[in-house]
Amino acid sequence: MTMAYIPGLAGVPATESAISYIDGQAGVLSYRGYSIAELAQFSSFEETALLLLTGELPSADELARFTEKLNENRRVKYNIRSLMKCLPATTHPMHMLQTVMASMASFYPSTAYMAGDENDDTYIREVSENILAHMGTLVAMWEHLRNGYDPINPRIDLSYAGNMLYMLKGKEPDPVWERLLDACLILHAEHTINASTFTALVTGSTLANPCSVVSSAIGSLSGPLHGAANEKVITMLEEIGDAKNARAYIENRLANKQVIWGMGHREYKTKDPRAAILQQLIQEHLLDKGGKLSKLFEIALAVEEVCKDLLAHKGVYPNVDFYSGILYREMGFDPASYTPIFAISRSAGWLAHWHEQLKKNKIYRPTQIYIGEGERRYTPISQR
Amino acid sequence: MTMAYIPGLAGVPATESAISYIDGQAGVLSYRGYSIAELAQFSSFEETALLLLTGELPSADELARFTEKLNENRRVKYNIRSLMKCLPATTHPMHMLQTVMASMASFYPSTAYMAGDENDDTYIREVSENILAHMGTLVAMWEHLRNGYDPINPRIDLSYAGNMLYMLKGKEPDPVWERLLDACLILHAEHTINASTFTALVTGSTLANPCSVVSSAIGSLSGPLHGAANEKVITMLEEIGDAKNARAYIENRLANKQVIWGMGHREYKTKDPRAAILQQLIQEHLLDKGGKLSKLFEIALAVEEVCKDLLAHKGVYPNVDFYSGILYREMGFDPASYTPIFAISRSAGWLAHWHEQLKKNKIYRPTQIYIGEGERRYTPISQR
Repeated sequence: MTMAYIPGLAGVPATESAISYIDGQAGVLSYRGYSIAELAQFSSFEETALLLLTGELPSADELARFTEKLNENRRVKYNIRSLMKCLPATTHPMHMLQTVMASMASFYPSTAYMAGDENDDTYIREVSENILAHMGTLVAMWEHLRNGYDPINPRIDLSYAGNMLYMLKGKEPDPVWERLLDACLILHAEHTINASTFTALVTGSTLANPCSVVSSAIGSLSGPLHGAANEKVITMLEEIGDAKNARAYIENRLANKQVIWGMGHREYKTKDPRAAILQQLIQEHLLDKGGKLSKLFEIALAVEEVCKDLLAHKGVYPNVDFYSGILYREMGFDPASYTPIFAISRSAGWLAHWHEQLKKNKIYRPTQIYIGEGERRYTPISQR
Repeated sequence: MTMAYIPGLAGVPATESAISYIDGQAGVLSYRGYSIAELAQFSSFEETALLLLTGELPSADELARFTEKLNENRRVKYNIRSLMKCLPATTHPMHMLQTVMASMASFYPSTAYMAGDENDDTYIREVSENILAHMGTLVAMWEHLRNGYDPINPRIDLSYAGNMLYMLKGKEPDPVWERLLDACLILHAEHTINASTFTALVTGSTLANPCSVVSSAIGSLSGPLHGAANEKVITMLEEIGDAKNARAYIENRLANKQVIWGMGHREYKTKDPRAAILQQLIQEHLLDKGGKLSKLFEIALAVEEVCKDLLAHKGVYPNVDFYSGILYREMGFDPASYTPIFAISRSAGWLAHWHEQLKKNKIYRPTQIYIGEGERRYTPISQR
């Protein structure tokens, strides 16, 4: 019997997973049972990544060891830097990331992998540390390389978020921004099965090299329907220009059936919990301490007010992209880097899913409903 | 209501498609309604690729135009060659291909794509021609580059298959091998929904750049469960060493429950039609004309005889990989290039599916069955 075809496989279970859980009605997202509200408040990206990878909060020793490995693996081989320099200066950092990650399968050949021991735990741990460590370094390096400058070398004494800010600006990271970037990395690290994570599962199920797997997932996340919304939020807020224009602008977009970027999420019927947490952290760590955000944040708050009026009754509330783009901008990242920062963080989730897939692997091979031509005979070209 | 979870989504329709059709009982594979037996006999890879992309056999003018574009697009930019030179000499050509294809999204930026006109027909045609043309050139170039030699420049006066052989050896291609390589490219060009084509669909559904889409699919095909069987057939035949050892070797592997490489295919209950066609073409174009194949081919025929005895009653027959590896070896390709040749050919199918997906796009976002921890509270690290 043929099963029904469901476009986009919406609602079709593609895996059994113990990694994350979404309660869309209650507006809750948890990693390995821990709500992201608690993780964003108490944990670090390093600890959260390790939680995602292993399933448990680490002991102090385990975390120290993992952090040390992440820090050590920040170094980028000079041949990888040379490869990056061959790319056009206009290369989008997502395309750079997909390219370099694919090449890392060769720069870091694994004997365990080549011997078919892809379930070897030491191998899985080491390759995950290396991929995770490189993601942040590569994005920060590219900001310099694409402008013709030597990259700033990574430091091993800084947190993951702190080192990213250091490599971007070349100076000690501001602790407030470090804290907020760390929170953003925690909040984006995992989100059940979406197109990029699904790409990682399908690619991983062929037992492809994990660098190839993450490269494929980056390709998927690079699509404008998936990863690019936080970049578009900024464009929209800049177009609005001033908080007092917010209502007219939004009403006009709604009347023209245009998307309000950063509003609504298919999984949540309430405010995206990640957006609420981010807003609260901004308040607590920045605004309450006399820190300021640019005019764009005021515009964003005005847009949120207007949307509460016009869209909340439809269950449409701000999502995480609504605030993260503003923060990345304030930290000095180029808009093209917003999706790559998402990718850096999400690589923790991709690797956790890759690892989970390996443990119970079956290659993905769905079927199709054939709607094409029936059998027909080849005609010589002279008769066409 | 929750749907049942089916590992690997086996039998779950993931798309409606008019591109290819498999009748596993009858042992028939058709592209756009045309059986591959007729295509392998009468068509060329260029014509077959265009058939897959457009849905119809081209007129003489259309084919001439397409062929001209494929030939022109064989040139590889020197910055792409420089990028290839940064890769370690040990880089598997599949990793090289995934890397370079990802970079091509930047080397060939498309204004239509960037403006969101991803359904623009001219854009789809041009980018498909460029990707398809580059695949063959890149693989042939890498054989020289990885050994430290300058690549042999492509020629625009040769067929797709002929140019690949020319770029590999630097001399006029032998018409028999050109014909047989052309047939191999036709036979591997498309095969409904498998892991790599599915990866292309999922990545494409985010509206990612087609170079990113093909790069992701290459990552998927690089996995040993998917693309690498033809390489393993050769290793197996070499281990057997002589036709007279075939029975003992196969019986021994079966007794130890080891895989007989190149035997069996989940889609076919009879001999893989592609294997049958390839065997017939070898007979007709090579053996009947006094041509010779190496001892490996004799061993392969002996293995096939033994397997007919031992496995045919289970519906296990030779698949296409059983013969293609032997041919590629005779043509002078390194075993590591066998899967890349598969990728070159299959890029036609990937691009046809990408194109089809765009026309009715819905992003892939299946769901999961959560089997993890229930809600639990974060504990400070000192208490763990």
